[in-house]
Amino acid sequence: QDNIILITKALKNSFIIPDFPSFRHNIDQIYWDLRANRTGQVATYIPQLARMNPEYWAVSICTVDGQRHSIGDVDVPFTLQSCSKPLTYALVQDEYNPEYVHKYIGREPSGRSFNEIKLDYQMKPHNPMINAGAILIASLVKPQMNSADRFDYVLKYLKRMAGGEYVSFSNPVFLSEKETADRNFALGYYMRENKCFPANVNLMDVMDFYFQLCSVEVTSDSTAVMAATLANGGYCPLTDEKVIDPASVRNTLSLMHSCGMYDWSGEFAFKELVNRFNFHHYDNLVHTPKKVDP
Amino acid sequence: QDNIILITKALKNSFIIPDFPSFRHNIDQIYWDLRANRTGQVATYIPQLARMNPEYWAVSICTVDGQRHSIGDVDVPFTLQSCSKPLTYALVQDEYNPEYVHKYIGREPSGRSFNEIKLDYQMKPHNPMINAGAILIASLVKPQMNSADRFDYVLKYLKRMAGGEYVSFSNPVFLSEKETADRNFALGYYMRENKCFPANVNLMDVMDFYFQLCSVEVTSDSTAVMAATLANGGYCPLTDEKVIDPASVRNTLSLMHSCGMYDWSGEFAFKELVNRFNFHHYDNLVHTPKKVDP
Amino acid sequence: QDNIILITKALKNSFIIPDFPSFRHNIDQIYWDLRANRTGQVATYIPQLARMNPEYWAVSICTVDGQRHSIGDVDVPFTLQSCSKPLTYALVQDEYNPEYVHKYIGREPSGRSFNEIKLDYQMKPHNPMINAGAILIASLVKPQMNSADRFDYVLKYLKRMAGGEYVSFSNPVFLSEKETADRNFALGYYMRENKCFPANVNLMDVMDFYFQLCSVEVTSDSTAVMAATLANGGYCPLTDEKVIDPASVRNTLSLMHSCGMYDWSGEFAFKELVNRFNFHHYDNLVHTPKKVDP
Amino acid sequence: QDNIILITKALKNSFIIPDFPSFRHNIDQIYWDLRANRTGQVATYIPQLARMNPEYWAVSICTVDGQRHSIGDVDVPFTLQSCSKPLTYALVQDEYNPEYVHKYIGREPSGRSFNEIKLDYQMKPHNPMINAGAILIASLVKPQMNSADRFDYVLKYLKRMAGGEYVSFSNPVFLSEKETADRNFALGYYMRENKCFPANVNLMDVMDFYFQLCSVEVTSDSTAVMAATLANGGYCPLTDEKVIDPASVRNTLSLMHSCGMYDWSGEFAFKELVNRFNFHHYDNLVHTPKKVDP
Repeated sequence: QDNIILITKALKNSFIIPDFPSFRHNIDQIYWDLRANRTGQVATYIPQLARMNPEYWAVSICTVDGQRHSIGDVDVPFTLQSCSKPLTYALVQDEYNPEYVHKYIGREPSGRSFNEIKLDYQMKPHNPMINAGAILIASLVKPQMNSADRFDYVLKYLKRMAGGEYVSFSNPVFLSEKETADRNFALGYYMRENKCFPANVNLMDVMDFYFQLCSVEVTSDSTAVMAATLANGGYCPLTDEKVIDPASVRNTLSLMHSCGMYDWSGEFAFKELVNRFNFHHYDNLVHTPKKVDP
Repeated sequence: QDNIILITKALKNSFIIPDFPSFRHNIDQIYWDLRANRTGQVATYIPQLARMNPEYWAVSICTVDGQRHSIGDVDVPFTLQSCSKPLTYALVQDEYNPEYVHKYIGREPSGRSFNEIKLDYQMKPHNPMINAGAILIASLVKPQMNSADRFDYVLKYLKRMAGGEYVSFSNPVFLSEKETADRNFALGYYMRENKCFPANVNLMDVMDFYFQLCSVEVTSDSTAVMAATLANGGYCPLTDEKVIDPASVRNTLSLMHSCGMYDWSGEFAFKELVNRFNFHHYDNLVHTPKKVDP
Repeated sequence: QDNIILITKALKNSFIIPDFPSFRHNIDQIYWDLRANRTGQVATYIPQLARMNPEYWAVSICTVDGQRHSIGDVDVPFTLQSCSKPLTYALVQDEYNPEYVHKYIGREPSGRSFNEIKLDYQMKPHNPMINAGAILIASLVKPQMNSADRFDYVLKYLKRMAGGEYVSFSNPVFLSEKETADRNFALGYYMRENKCFPANVNLMDVMDFYFQLCSVEVTSDSTAVMAATLANGGYCPLTDEKVIDPASVRNTLSLMHSCGMYDWSGEFAFKELVNRFNFHHYDNLVHTPKKVDP
Repeated sequence: QDNIILITKALKNSFIIPDFPSFRHNIDQIYWDLRANRTGQVATYIPQLARMNPEYWAVSICTVDGQRHSIGDVDVPFTLQSCSKPLTYALVQDEYNPEYVHKYIGREPSGRSFNEIKLDYQMKPHNPMINAGAILIASLVKPQMNSADRFDYVLKYLKRMAGGEYVSFSNPVFLSEKETADRNFALGYYMRENKCFPANVNLMDVMDFYFQLCSVEVTSDSTAVMAATLANGGYCPLTDEKVIDPASVRNTLSLMHSCGMYDWSGEFAFKELVNRFNFHHYDNLVHTPKKVDP
């Protein structure tokens, strides 16, 4: 059934990236070029992450119409960590109207470190992409459910985002995360003091749930599908299932753009891609002879 | 490499079950016969288990020399629950000498329900297969490690037991388990009152760890490999790796035999198999014309 | 004002014990006789109690009409421990009708140790004077209040029972009690498993509250007034205030009589008094020449 | 015995305040003058404090040589709250050398609110008189003791400071304090994140202990004795017992002077006294005709 969608598009020659073989070739070249790069280092704030093999290197691509390309360690499981933030935000957007959600949280960059103990001038966390904001968003997820059902619910949502591909849970990372989360606990108590949470929220349950969200395990391949589902307006390109509403996706992408790069982690890859491919409409207007139409 | 072992044995025609096709046929027949059986019911003590589909039905076989047969829902994940007890006991046997382990725990059937609040006449839990005993065994696993590393350690051991096949963790089941574990908490406190645990044990950590062990997720196929590793004296038939020492396996199998059937769950299948196949030496001595040599 | 009550009775020569000087003399004699007794020992189940000076010895008397006599270490503070049980039961009787209270708890002696992990055949704790029952009774005290207000409420009630005399709280005993309460936690979890508690009870809060009730500090003198308030049908002899309803007192005294002596602690003194004084109507019918009319 | 000290001094006419009757008269006048003052309000951050009767008004005086004067509600119990900070600091000074203590804590005013989430440039709390500092000081009190013994130890110390006068514990205030302590928990976690505490400190135990210290109950009279013990170089004027070392007292008084007035609470009374009495040497040098030699 899924294949019919792909095949139909293939027959109509109407894929987003028409010449996929050349595109794959270009991606592979980038992969090999960047493989030599040994800068950067693994996260060290919890022992489980510090032991991660720094040699792992993967590129996974899933287009909005479901074409895929994978190279490198694409099925090594790793935990979502802060990448869970936009995904939970999108889910919460979908359950409530944006006005309700933003009664509790701002939409502006904080201009500060991702875990600063600061609230905005209305005593709300600045946005859902910093730790304080993500903890608050966690408190909005199905508050009436017990903790088992609540996690189950998010896990099923993430699996639908990933079109059924690898989504699991790392209990060791969760346990380690929870034990070394002093700053996050400080943020949680600071927000409770400032009455940031909705009524009847149990802070310890929220903190636990937040650490669980950070400990969801994915692969390079399955996150590519999640990203494609967002890029595709909430419809998973593999299953064609509507996972979230386009309006919620739009709000999420907008905040990812303005607030999501708090540590510039994506800058390097982004520049590489922009140097090589025409992604934007204005790319056609200027003279960029070396650029390729993807 | 693994295949070489299989192929060599195949060439030598030296498999434990020489006529595997007939054996498979027999197993399939049992599978279909029993499929009609609608007695029994799913566990209801936690909501996550109560929602399990009662239609799932699978048979997975892995012989000590690695021949495999699978029929039915063999890759539906489920949690180990009490099946974790012998596996943890084997691990603990392997880390200490049996005298040390049995300073803390008996080796006799309790003659009572699996979760009775009773200790034996030396004020020790009766054996590692009842809840009290399994909680105590959990307290012996790598007590010097933090909880993240300890769980990691057991998870890696179980994956080696399963020859790398499906071993994961169900966080929803764990959360649900922990919330409804009144009897287990009563057992834990009762044991602490009676000084059953080694020095410096943190009871809440032990309880958490025990619930985590029960929430390890496997499939019918991966547990078949674990069982085969035990049956094969601690060597995994898929990888030929020595996972536990033969002496530890022998002690474990012995307690599984004497104390492991506390609720007669296996009786039905056992009778079926014994009626159909010659498993025991004495089967050859008596006249059992309808029985098959497996 | 309080004195007027006493003086009026004195003028009317209508005291319960008309010849108080002789009575005091008799009591003092008992006091000095028993002082030599070195049997018995201080409680050792928590360190704070084990360090108590075993030489302390006091007799405090408060009659139902407020006559008092004190001899020995009558103002050394000690904690109520199990003596809190009838006092809390009386309070709970007063707040609800007896039918409601006894939906949750029996009224029969258990025939077992005070802290046995057993429930009666209706799966209720046997009575409010054993630990399981007292924990359950604690769960009925003002469940809608937060823990601070709830304790405040009981403390004020106990001070009214004691006519304003010494009622305080030993935080060291409470902390020690809580840390060594394995059996009580086992009882609490066992009762929760058996759905003994009313809906929405937080077990940890109840346990904490129960340990706090045991850690209320009194003196020999102030407990004599509490006892007199009970003996006087709920009216404090010092203040003439109605602290609890006579019907609640009657139910409490009845259970104290049938279930309150679980460890025979009072037997010795009881015998001494009965040997010396005419307390009961039948005492007048038989020939007991050596007995004194108190 | 204690009286001998007083009587000797009286005979020698060598009291600090030679004309005590006039001094008392002056104090009473201040008492009655200020009684009309209805500014200020009771603390509202916890319900137990918010219910305090705002009409209570008391002045208790205890001189360094034990002369006493009391007027008003001098035996109404109230909790120490932040007044516990210098007392615990003095105790910790006495147990360790100052260098050790100040490895963990600064000695400078913070120039900020008493509960700001900030550390000094060496990542230490600024001083022992703000909340962060007092929590840290609490972690230094007898860390090897269990929580019951530790609190017992401080309670006994405070009773010695107060010469045996009223020192008790308000469990309702403690329970309320703990439930509404979001900012203090935030401070605790923030300090743990920044490795402010000594090794092996259990943060939850420290927080609990800090709230217990704030919930110690005193009266106006008993605190006057505590203050006199500090003013008398660590020797209690009532018992002549050396409670703390003079060097520890000096360090404590010095920090009380520089950092202890974080909210200017004492300013009003201070001005009154300075306007009326000659306290300082320079008072004699200038012409202040209306001032009285106390």
